[in-house]
Amino acid sequence: MDREKLLAAVREQVTEHRYQHTLGVMETAIALARKYGVNEKKAETAAILHDYCKFWPEEKMRKIIKRTPHIEKDLLDYDKELWHAPVGAEVVKQTLGIQDEKILNAIRYHTSGREKMKKLEKVVCLADYIEPNRIFPGVEEIRQLAENDIDAALIKAFGNTITFLVNRGKKVYPLTVMARNSLLAEQKNVQEELK
Amino acid sequence: MDREKLLAAVREQVTEHRYQHTLGVMETAIALARKYGVNEKKAETAAILHDYCKFWPEEKMRKIIKRTPHIEKDLLDYDKELWHAPVGAEVVKQTLGIQDEKILNAIRYHTSGREKMKKLEKVVCLADYIEPNRIFPGVEEIRQLAENDIDAALIKAFGNTITFLVNRGKKVYPLTVMARNSLLAEQKNVQEELK
Repeated sequence: MDREKLLAAVREQVTEHRYQHTLGVMETAIALARKYGVNEKKAETAAILHDYCKFWPEEKMRKIIKRTPHIEKDLLDYDKELWHAPVGAEVVKQTLGIQDEKILNAIRYHTSGREKMKKLEKVVCLADYIEPNRIFPGVEEIRQLAENDIDAALIKAFGNTITFLVNRGKKVYPLTVMARNSLLAEQKNVQEELK
Repeated sequence: MDREKLLAAVREQVTEHRYQHTLGVMETAIALARKYGVNEKKAETAAILHDYCKFWPEEKMRKIIKRTPHIEKDLLDYDKELWHAPVGAEVVKQTLGIQDEKILNAIRYHTSGREKMKKLEKVVCLADYIEPNRIFPGVEEIRQLAENDIDAALIKAFGNTITFLVNRGKKVYPLTVMARNSLLAEQKNVQEELK
């Protein structure tokens, strides 16, 4: 499906504010894909669709999580902010016919991250953090890191998410901790190879 | 085994500084056990032995982790500070004949915590954080919480550990995150019962 059709499909699902965010994620994901040697068209598609289910009712998302075999059920014990990502992947597969598993995984893990993230997943996840409309504390540091080191940028981004949740007395989804641990391990391996 | 024999056994294994810490954990664990209705003798035994292997050589601990079926092998990918706890439980079982699984679990999980911690485990873990020789930032707040709410104190303690590690760019052991999540869920259930 071409860019305009995908954008039109998303526009029907989200608020205008979220649509502007989506455009920012799309532009940022394309730029990151070019910088880090990732398929730009796939980055564009995943970025456009990443928040497709962001405003779906809780009950509708809960049902999809329960009935979809490969969605981890423990998600239901965690913040609902996490749900739209795996639900979105499932919905764009069923309703828009997106079949590419790399694109679907980039949508699926854009909020939580996961262990051993693929490059396309990193690009979409990071673009979601740093697109130009984002203004939260610390975002500028992550933008700087993203210029040269996508892993360092994501480690910082996940770290900020974890401390944000801890400081507010909220649960932390273990997969996000494992995503960050996994990136730290990759970084260490690269450093050891360069010795 | 009586208190003096256990203390003598530990004294052979650790530095004088760590022995003083052990005495602090013992006194604090007994006080917490009394306050929260936990077997004081078991709390005493687990507290005395909790750091038994704290100064064992890395290679010796690694071997024990590798050959002991129920010790999670992923520990080897994380900070060595975590190793002495499950190794210590195994060693005091084999060499001092400690057979009580509740005591062994309190030793095993005193650093990492775990999901659905038992009361005795909470007592020893918290005593290790707040015994009188501890002076790190935030310890006074945890001591205050421990006066009335052992779960709130542990949530705060685990939260501090997690943010400490994140801020230093270190990996976070997922079990600690799950321990904190589990305590938050318990707290929520209690609040809902009281409504």
